[in-house]
Amino acid sequence: MSALYFEDFTVGRRFESASLAITEAEIVEFARRYDPQPFHLDAETAARTPYGGLIASGLHTLTLTFRLFLETGALAASSLGSPGLDEIRWLLPVRPGDTMRVVVEVAAARPSSSKSDRGIATLRYQAFNQHGQTVLTMTGHQLLRRRP
Amino acid sequence: MSALYFEDFTVGRRFESASLAITEAEIVEFARRYDPQPFHLDAETAARTPYGGLIASGLHTLTLTFRLFLETGALAASSLGSPGLDEIRWLLPVRPGDTMRVVVEVAAARPSSSKSDRGIATLRYQAFNQHGQTVLTMTGHQLLRRRP
Repeated sequence: MSALYFEDFTVGRRFESASLAITEAEIVEFARRYDPQPFHLDAETAARTPYGGLIASGLHTLTLTFRLFLETGALAASSLGSPGLDEIRWLLPVRPGDTMRVVVEVAAARPSSSKSDRGIATLRYQAFNQHGQTVLTMTGHQLLRRRP
Repeated sequence: MSALYFEDFTVGRRFESASLAITEAEIVEFARRYDPQPFHLDAETAARTPYGGLIASGLHTLTLTFRLFLETGALAASSLGSPGLDEIRWLLPVRPGDTMRVVVEVAAARPSSSKSDRGIATLRYQAFNQHGQTVLTMTGHQLLRRRP
C-alpha cells in the first residue's frame, strides 16, 4: 500500500485485512498474562462454564483486531496514536481454530482544531470469523498526520 | 476477598488494585506482538516521534488495567464475561518505569431480563500513574452470577 495520510481517509473508504487463525496455545498464553479467567485459561475448566469450552479473552480479540488492521499498512505513514475507543462489543466467542479477519471503514474525518499537522479519523471496525459471523465491533479514533 | 456475587456489586462500591510497574521490555514485547507502531517498539525511533520517547500501547495499558482489577479478586466467584466496553480514553502516555494502579467503581447494576441466574454491572475504571495522574478511563459491562 502506498503511504496514506489524513487526506486519504475519506468517509466510506474501506480497508480489508488478511485472515488470522487463532490457536489454543495463543488463547491460553494471552489469558495467563492478561485475563486469567476460567473460560480463557484451560479447556477442561472452560468446558464446565456456560461457554462450554475455551474462548479467547475479548481483550485478546480486540488486540488482534487492531493488529490485523495495522497489517494492512493503512496507518504506517501517518499514525500519531489514538485518544480512545468506543462501543467495543463482543458479539460471539472466538474459539481455538477460529479464523479472524477485519474490515475497517472510515465513518468520519476532521482536521484537528488545535494542531495544523494532523486530523482525526473515526474508524468503524468489524471482525468476522471463518463463517462470516461478526465477532466484534468497535469504533476507533485515530490521529493521523496530514500530507507533508 | 470473600466470594462476591452480583448482589455485592452495589452502586458506589469501589475496588482498589495493587500497583504494577511497567518495564521497557514488556512495552516492546507487547508492541511487537499486537501493536507494532514506531512509538511503542523502540526507544530510539520513538524519540523522533511527537511522543519524544517510548510509550506503552494503549491496548497494553487497557489489558493491564483489566488485569489489575481482576487481581483484586472481585470477579473471581461470579464473572460470566463481558458483552463490551465503552468510552476508553487514553489521557496520558504510560512510559517505561511508570507504575499503574486502578480504581473501579460500580456505576449501575441490574438483573438480567432474560437469564435469572445473572446480572449486569456497569463498572467505571480509572487507571493512575505513580504521580496520581489519570492515564486511562473506561466503562465496562460485566456479567455476574447471582448468589446461589
